[in-house]
Amino acid sequence: MPELRHDPIQRRWVIISSERGRRPLDFHANGEADSEATRKSCPFCPGREHLTPKTIQSFDDGDGNWRVRVVANRFPALRIEGELDRKAAGQFDRMNGVGAHEVIIETPDHDKGLVDLPVDHIAQVLTAYKARINDLRKDTRLRYILVFKNAGASAGASLSHAHTQVMATPITPRTVAVELASAKEHYQVKERCLFCDILAQELETGTRVVKVDDDFITHCPYASRFPFEMHIHPRSHAHDFAGSDDGLLRRLAFHLKEVLRRMNTALGNPGYNFLIHTCPATEGRVHRSNYWSTLALDWHWHIEILPRITNVAGFEWGTGFYINPTPPEEAARFLREVDL
Amino acid sequence: MPELRHDPIQRRWVIISSERGRRPLDFHANGEADSEATRKSCPFCPGREHLTPKTIQSFDDGDGNWRVRVVANRFPALRIEGELDRKAAGQFDRMNGVGAHEVIIETPDHDKGLVDLPVDHIAQVLTAYKARINDLRKDTRLRYILVFKNAGASAGASLSHAHTQVMATPITPRTVAVELASAKEHYQVKERCLFCDILAQELETGTRVVKVDDDFITHCPYASRFPFEMHIHPRSHAHDFAGSDDGLLRRLAFHLKEVLRRMNTALGNPGYNFLIHTCPATEGRVHRSNYWSTLALDWHWHIEILPRITNVAGFEWGTGFYINPTPPEEAARFLREVDL
Repeated sequence: MPELRHDPIQRRWVIISSERGRRPLDFHANGEADSEATRKSCPFCPGREHLTPKTIQSFDDGDGNWRVRVVANRFPALRIEGELDRKAAGQFDRMNGVGAHEVIIETPDHDKGLVDLPVDHIAQVLTAYKARINDLRKDTRLRYILVFKNAGASAGASLSHAHTQVMATPITPRTVAVELASAKEHYQVKERCLFCDILAQELETGTRVVKVDDDFITHCPYASRFPFEMHIHPRSHAHDFAGSDDGLLRRLAFHLKEVLRRMNTALGNPGYNFLIHTCPATEGRVHRSNYWSTLALDWHWHIEILPRITNVAGFEWGTGFYINPTPPEEAARFLREVDL
Repeated sequence: MPELRHDPIQRRWVIISSERGRRPLDFHANGEADSEATRKSCPFCPGREHLTPKTIQSFDDGDGNWRVRVVANRFPALRIEGELDRKAAGQFDRMNGVGAHEVIIETPDHDKGLVDLPVDHIAQVLTAYKARINDLRKDTRLRYILVFKNAGASAGASLSHAHTQVMATPITPRTVAVELASAKEHYQVKERCLFCDILAQELETGTRVVKVDDDFITHCPYASRFPFEMHIHPRSHAHDFAGSDDGLLRRLAFHLKEVLRRMNTALGNPGYNFLIHTCPATEGRVHRSNYWSTLALDWHWHIEILPRITNVAGFEWGTGFYINPTPPEEAARFLREVDL
């Protein structure tokens, strides 16, 4: 019998339809290698720095060469210039597209994915995320700094060279706004963090846990929208990813690498999206409207990993209604039991 | 300069990023023809009726052959058997997957799309939608009847033979629930329909209108999430698609055919999703909870057509934040000016 499950954070129902029975092998997707021409014109490779907009920030390898490099997006969806201009258009509302859109090139090596890098190098990528979030937050026009990664063509990447995007927006994205509201209501009633409560239940149940260590837990959420969806949470309550110290980021790098390796082995290197949900940029900043200066200490930052292995887009987009053919308990078991 | 636009119905912001400049030709997608083997095993073709579950309802061509045929989905995401069972799972909530999942085979002809059928035949397909909605509404366990069409592999169709799906769910899908709430709040303040107000503005502005006749208007919404997204509304206020009479459905068939032809010509026969947003199944029915027996007379039914020409899934799924590279004014102009 299929089952409907409610996501208490996103406040939506998901159909878990196990009878459609999809196991990891059904999803195996091996990405094609780049052609020689694509490799020879890759703007993210060393020696072709002139093909990207100028470097915003750079982290070097100790020998004077860059190891992680941040540049502006050449085709930005939002622009950093100008004052934020809100106005009505008849009964509609608009604002101009002020924001920022950056690219973090994760490695000089064209052929390595994030998962292939040594733990120290991954930690440096995470440090770059933190640095960009903290830097962009100084701009008071911006409400949210979104760090996300599209890995592979199926996940929407237009270049295969490993990179992450940072988008700073004058609004908080809808899913984050819903999560913030859920966390706040839960805290107001119970004086406990909604995420901490869920993690405690997940640890007790165990069936949806993929990996747990002293600092982090990765699990497949109870109402997962997608097969093999994974969320990583810090076990100690913390509302801000960008408040993590170097030691924690290094331990996150270790944890993340293992979790991505499990996904790649189980699913044959699928394309995936990776998103950091952290507190809004307005945190602790007094904004023009008091509403926005509300603290989000009841919030718990996390990372979402969404393998892009199913193609059921339009229906879900049109309805907000998800059908997931792989129960998260089965997905977690496959991911736990994989041979690394 | 890119622009952020607010959707007053879905209550979300969309980035209209015209500088990424995508015109119809950038999206041209010509579907591949089926192989002979696929054609020879198609379960929706006449003579292979034994390959589908039994016929639920059938509309004939006047000569004793079926022209439109309704069957149960062979791999249903929800099942019609059993009582609805709601329960808690720790702090989570679940219910069993009671519902219905049907398929409407639109034509016996393997090679024709909905758009290729004569207007009278399209009207018969729309009549089948209406009949299924009205029939399934009698089941008091069900809250919503969702009619949707995935056309083409890029839109999630697993069979190319023209068909529509009907899913009856024990909950109202999230996007419909948000729309219902927006319409109700607007009505409570203004005693006018939110959708009627928007349509009046669209007719006055004109720039986003694709086609208008005495009964229907098709426009590209102000805060379109996707390039060339189109919505069809009846011009006279009506909350229930399934309350439409035969004359209106025939005029809708005529309107729909032209709008789909414009899309196909402009974009080279893209895959697309098609969704009917009508009032909940509980309309006018006294349910166990009074909340659900509230009438939705302030609601305005409509059809959404979403061409599947961009692949930016994961990011949007993870954030609820859409980036649309084609301003709806440009999309509407292309669709209006296309030579038919």
